[in-house]
Amino acid sequence: MSTKIPRDAQNDYTPEIAAARRGFVAQHTGASLETVGNYAIAPAACAGNIENFIGCAQVPIGIAGPLRVNGEYAQGDFYVPLATTEGTLVASYNRGIKLVSEAGGVLTTVSEDIMQRSPSFIFDNAREARAFREWVAEHFAEIKAVADATSSVGRLRDIDPYASNKFMFLRFNYTTGDAAGQNMVSKATHAACEWIRANYPKLRHYYLESNFSTDKKHSAINVLRTRGKRVTAECTIPRDLLIQRMRVSPEQLRHARAMSMTGAFIVGANSNGSHVANAVAALFIATGQDLGNVAESSAATSFIEVTDSGDFYISLTIPALIVATYGGGTGLPTQQECLALLGCQGKGNAKKLAEITAALALAGDLSLASAITAEEWVTAHEKYGRNR
Amino acid sequence: MSTKIPRDAQNDYTPEIAAARRGFVAQHTGASLETVGNYAIAPAACAGNIENFIGCAQVPIGIAGPLRVNGEYAQGDFYVPLATTEGTLVASYNRGIKLVSEAGGVLTTVSEDIMQRSPSFIFDNAREARAFREWVAEHFAEIKAVADATSSVGRLRDIDPYASNKFMFLRFNYTTGDAAGQNMVSKATHAACEWIRANYPKLRHYYLESNFSTDKKHSAINVLRTRGKRVTAECTIPRDLLIQRMRVSPEQLRHARAMSMTGAFIVGANSNGSHVANAVAALFIATGQDLGNVAESSAATSFIEVTDSGDFYISLTIPALIVATYGGGTGLPTQQECLALLGCQGKGNAKKLAEITAALALAGDLSLASAITAEEWVTAHEKYGRNR
Amino acid sequence: MSTKIPRDAQNDYTPEIAAARRGFVAQHTGASLETVGNYAIAPAACAGNIENFIGCAQVPIGIAGPLRVNGEYAQGDFYVPLATTEGTLVASYNRGIKLVSEAGGVLTTVSEDIMQRSPSFIFDNAREARAFREWVAEHFAEIKAVADATSSVGRLRDIDPYASNKFMFLRFNYTTGDAAGQNMVSKATHAACEWIRANYPKLRHYYLESNFSTDKKHSAINVLRTRGKRVTAECTIPRDLLIQRMRVSPEQLRHARAMSMTGAFIVGANSNGSHVANAVAALFIATGQDLGNVAESSAATSFIEVTDSGDFYISLTIPALIVATYGGGTGLPTQQECLALLGCQGKGNAKKLAEITAALALAGDLSLASAITAEEWVTAHEKYGRNR
Amino acid sequence: MSTKIPRDAQNDYTPEIAAARRGFVAQHTGASLETVGNYAIAPAACAGNIENFIGCAQVPIGIAGPLRVNGEYAQGDFYVPLATTEGTLVASYNRGIKLVSEAGGVLTTVSEDIMQRSPSFIFDNAREARAFREWVAEHFAEIKAVADATSSVGRLRDIDPYASNKFMFLRFNYTTGDAAGQNMVSKATHAACEWIRANYPKLRHYYLESNFSTDKKHSAINVLRTRGKRVTAECTIPRDLLIQRMRVSPEQLRHARAMSMTGAFIVGANSNGSHVANAVAALFIATGQDLGNVAESSAATSFIEVTDSGDFYISLTIPALIVATYGGGTGLPTQQECLALLGCQGKGNAKKLAEITAALALAGDLSLASAITAEEWVTAHEKYGRNR
Repeated sequence: MSTKIPRDAQNDYTPEIAAARRGFVAQHTGASLETVGNYAIAPAACAGNIENFIGCAQVPIGIAGPLRVNGEYAQGDFYVPLATTEGTLVASYNRGIKLVSEAGGVLTTVSEDIMQRSPSFIFDNAREARAFREWVAEHFAEIKAVADATSSVGRLRDIDPYASNKFMFLRFNYTTGDAAGQNMVSKATHAACEWIRANYPKLRHYYLESNFSTDKKHSAINVLRTRGKRVTAECTIPRDLLIQRMRVSPEQLRHARAMSMTGAFIVGANSNGSHVANAVAALFIATGQDLGNVAESSAATSFIEVTDSGDFYISLTIPALIVATYGGGTGLPTQQECLALLGCQGKGNAKKLAEITAALALAGDLSLASAITAEEWVTAHEKYGRNR
Repeated sequence: MSTKIPRDAQNDYTPEIAAARRGFVAQHTGASLETVGNYAIAPAACAGNIENFIGCAQVPIGIAGPLRVNGEYAQGDFYVPLATTEGTLVASYNRGIKLVSEAGGVLTTVSEDIMQRSPSFIFDNAREARAFREWVAEHFAEIKAVADATSSVGRLRDIDPYASNKFMFLRFNYTTGDAAGQNMVSKATHAACEWIRANYPKLRHYYLESNFSTDKKHSAINVLRTRGKRVTAECTIPRDLLIQRMRVSPEQLRHARAMSMTGAFIVGANSNGSHVANAVAALFIATGQDLGNVAESSAATSFIEVTDSGDFYISLTIPALIVATYGGGTGLPTQQECLALLGCQGKGNAKKLAEITAALALAGDLSLASAITAEEWVTAHEKYGRNR
Repeated sequence: MSTKIPRDAQNDYTPEIAAARRGFVAQHTGASLETVGNYAIAPAACAGNIENFIGCAQVPIGIAGPLRVNGEYAQGDFYVPLATTEGTLVASYNRGIKLVSEAGGVLTTVSEDIMQRSPSFIFDNAREARAFREWVAEHFAEIKAVADATSSVGRLRDIDPYASNKFMFLRFNYTTGDAAGQNMVSKATHAACEWIRANYPKLRHYYLESNFSTDKKHSAINVLRTRGKRVTAECTIPRDLLIQRMRVSPEQLRHARAMSMTGAFIVGANSNGSHVANAVAALFIATGQDLGNVAESSAATSFIEVTDSGDFYISLTIPALIVATYGGGTGLPTQQECLALLGCQGKGNAKKLAEITAALALAGDLSLASAITAEEWVTAHEKYGRNR
Repeated sequence: MSTKIPRDAQNDYTPEIAAARRGFVAQHTGASLETVGNYAIAPAACAGNIENFIGCAQVPIGIAGPLRVNGEYAQGDFYVPLATTEGTLVASYNRGIKLVSEAGGVLTTVSEDIMQRSPSFIFDNAREARAFREWVAEHFAEIKAVADATSSVGRLRDIDPYASNKFMFLRFNYTTGDAAGQNMVSKATHAACEWIRANYPKLRHYYLESNFSTDKKHSAINVLRTRGKRVTAECTIPRDLLIQRMRVSPEQLRHARAMSMTGAFIVGANSNGSHVANAVAALFIATGQDLGNVAESSAATSFIEVTDSGDFYISLTIPALIVATYGGGTGLPTQQECLALLGCQGKGNAKKLAEITAALALAGDLSLASAITAEEWVTAHEKYGRNR
């Protein structure tokens, strides 16, 4: 019995070859893949998104909303599709959504939008590396021309250099339109590096990446310098509304947040918010984002205060939110529908989606922080979840 | 036109109410949710996993393997279901899988298995907080009895105290069987805290969580002290095999890894590996894990060396891998099938799944590191991916 | 002309050989070392503290106080010697000292006291490393006997294991009396490791240190698990007193601290306080501590709140404060005098010194935070400092 | 008996008032300060460096060298004064110095030189903060003019903006000649901020500092973006020389370094080198630097490799080294002499001093790493140190 997964040399994205693969693994493992095979999308639509296609994971979607967003791109009330298997999550976000919307909605701001590839350049010594930095600055226009020629969308914005040891790490910052852009910037930076190699003889070697980007990882550099969108959500909740809806006062929340900000500082957490990763992951699955990017997109900085009038101001900055409305998994059927639900289908909508994500994350953080503070957290899970 | 999402007071998990909700949002947004509504699972099966169910996200699954794992729980050849929308990912992992399997397979070891809830206890001053720590140590048996009584599975193993300011943060470490256990430990710790409150009058206040766990976040404490499973994958690739399959020598890989380990150190990345988050996310979606946990489960420590005989040793430790084979989303239909494919369905299999995940991550890191080193990375994406 | 620094084979710690060395370098460099040579201590007293002795650096000491400390070891009013060359520093600390003392003094608490050496143990694979961890736990008594036999003071308290890759890092935690103890724990752990090597044949190799301690470095592990003393200082400043003395209200300080705690979180600082390192460094020089330890002893966690009665509570935890009153530089003449000034001379006083240090740091942080908030910071430097 | 430390309204820097203060504290504490009072410098020379002067700490200085440095500023053989009380330190550095000098010396490179003050600006919301960033960019010339007018030396080079929540943190980067410059940049930035406040009505509030600089603290931002000098030291040690002098082979050192780099990564250390803080602290005391800056100046990135010819390459980058040859404590007598010894007295020499510091740190790291690897570390301390 062969252990080689079946392939179809002519057309590898047909229901037949997918079925053949399911049969193959069933034969090898005894596992039926009936429901996996009962998918609703054309295999051909998956070319470019997957290899060795066998069917689909079906992840339940719950709807939350309406979430009022006062963004520059997202304006109005949104029904948000959340794909998750974690009971209570949709209910908890919905509770926060209701509150922030009643409070007038969430103000959202995208303050940065760049995608990186960060090659490392190796020299004989640090002095050569430093000289190279000067040369790059002088030849930026030529490097940019080479990089930009590789795509109709990606544009090299600037090159941010970091010297260490006998290396120069160059953070190539691109705008990538409404695509997440990781592949686009790889291709562009590869071309730029090859041009550099041809034109800078003292270069000993380069690697297209040496963990300086940092793709699929949380890092201090991403928090400081942005990867993807840097987006902030803000809301002021009137005092009485907060007390009525959440059974906590602004002062109680301030006290609890002081503790959780302190805790986050001591343990070196990548977020001093509550559970941004939940909003990000649920929206990412629904809308066809790259789930590996939850690593960097889960970082967040929360800030709260009680206003002079006794109301509760809360804000949340996600410094490395990677979302796309074009490319990657965004073109697949259920993902397209969920993007359409948010009015975020296709080009021109990536920042809109970033704003909605941040507003959603804020609502969820407010909900969870309130529940912990009001000591209703465990009770909520007993009501909605599986308690396992 | 009401903005209130339809609910069914009698049975909120029926095809009818799901359809009603899709109709409702279609009315509000103009978006069709036809494919979302064309799901293959019974809505009733989702109770406890989702609220306001409207249908399913369909995420393509590709099959990779056979991956040979020499674990204590995972032993043999595995066909691994990867749910992703990122082109090239399955192909790249498969390339690494082929290599490590040819090399004899991946040795895997689970060296720790604990889940936390970490309440903060507030006192009048640091001295009172310190006294409380002593009291907790003396009353551990009673606290454990209270915590353990809340579930048939979760067992309080120990309490790890951290003093700061006038607070005592207690990290309650539990074994939770084959469930991820976050809700289980919340309930148990809540009961323990209430007992403490009743029996320790000098306690001023406590919060069930203050970002000390740290759930849905990367943190230094999770890397050091484990959250979920601490699992290591190792493999030695014979020199000639590496050169033949990857077109790189052990020495070239060592050079490239030295650079990427340096890069990771400088930028403060949560992994000095290549792209662990990709393996984690793709397997998490397929098998019904909590995708928010990609935040902590993406942390990794890679170590490589060229052996005395010139072969290439690579290992990877994931210190906070949160996987379950029971509870949460693991019971849903496509997720059950994918778990069955791995022989990881139901109780007794969580460590097996952890071992497979680590082996997979190692294979993928080896593949990507080789591609970058051999300068074939961009080319691979041009062949398989969408290049956007 | 020889380039070899003169040595005296019989007695290398005499005024004559020190003078000969000064003459030698003067000959080589043209630099006079007259004041360096005009020291007030007997060279013989420096044996064990320095090699190639040529004289002394003279660092000005300013006196601050009286600082009221309500510690368990430090009780009463202290005049604190601060050795520094930074204008304004003594004045600024004195301002804070006056305030906290008027407020009734600083409550101090030492909640932990351990010194580490953390060898790394290398095995064939992770499974062997894990087995070793069990073996160490089972043989703790024997290991402790070997370690404790190396000194009359150092006592192995526990061994804290960390598994990664095919390694086991063991953090040997010792109590070291009133010495800082780094050499003591090196010697003890070396003996323990040699015993382990003799008794655990599967061990491939060990290193006495692999940056896991982490000596002379800031690290997350020190913040979490303590190195040296974990000490907390606390004070509540009556509202009116704060306003009168510092020209800021509790609410203004709260606002400013919220900002600086947020800043520290974003940039990944090792302290969210103000300038703990200044207190630590100035007291370290004066009292003969190891100045390289400023690296770890500068980490701090600050927490403030406005009390229900409108007063200002501030606390500061230094999690890795390394101070000694015995051994190292503490026995030198000016250092002995400064220790005597604090009643911290010799054995039995290390925790007392830790308490005074933390109280001092709190006072200085309060002073600087107030100055920044009241916008008097630059003005103060113009008055007292050199403005360069 | 008054508790007020004596002051002299006319001239507070005389031997008499210093003696009066010593008498005062002797009366209060019973401690004699005879040796503290037996100082060799004129109290008047300390005005601007200290308040409440009582005398001097005398810290032994040992001489090491000759250290061969092949820098751009430091060229030749240097005798290095190390002020420390830690036995073995000078001997260990000397051992490393001898080796790197025999190997031809240390190549040093300063690749960056900037000092910061980083005010935080608070707005009504994130959108206003973002607009402010644009305004600052447009008005850079005016802001620079205001900042530069405050000093004859400090020059605003650029403003690096960081957006978070409703704040804009601006990192003002200055060149400050041969002064460390912290006070200089405070004054300049204060002036700039006041100008901004007057010209940007939408600004709600600003703080001159909110832990974004980060002075007297280690931080990720300093490692990435430089504070003070970013300086690299490099050396290639011929294989046979290494083996002969250190009793370790390049391959053994590579193995040990792989472990210590892994350890540093796991524990989140601010250096993956060996003990940079020791070099920094000892040279700082001797030459009149600000010892509080050991906090940031102890961060380092080490990189090693075995060359194709089997030799050992080692390099070390200190990304936030704060050294001055002018201002602060550098003008005091023993400090001036030690600077003169290095040919670093006065203006034009700060980069030279930075190069020497880095070369020294490299030598010491090489010595300690070799000792640990050759298992001679504990033995060395038994020979030279006090073993306490």
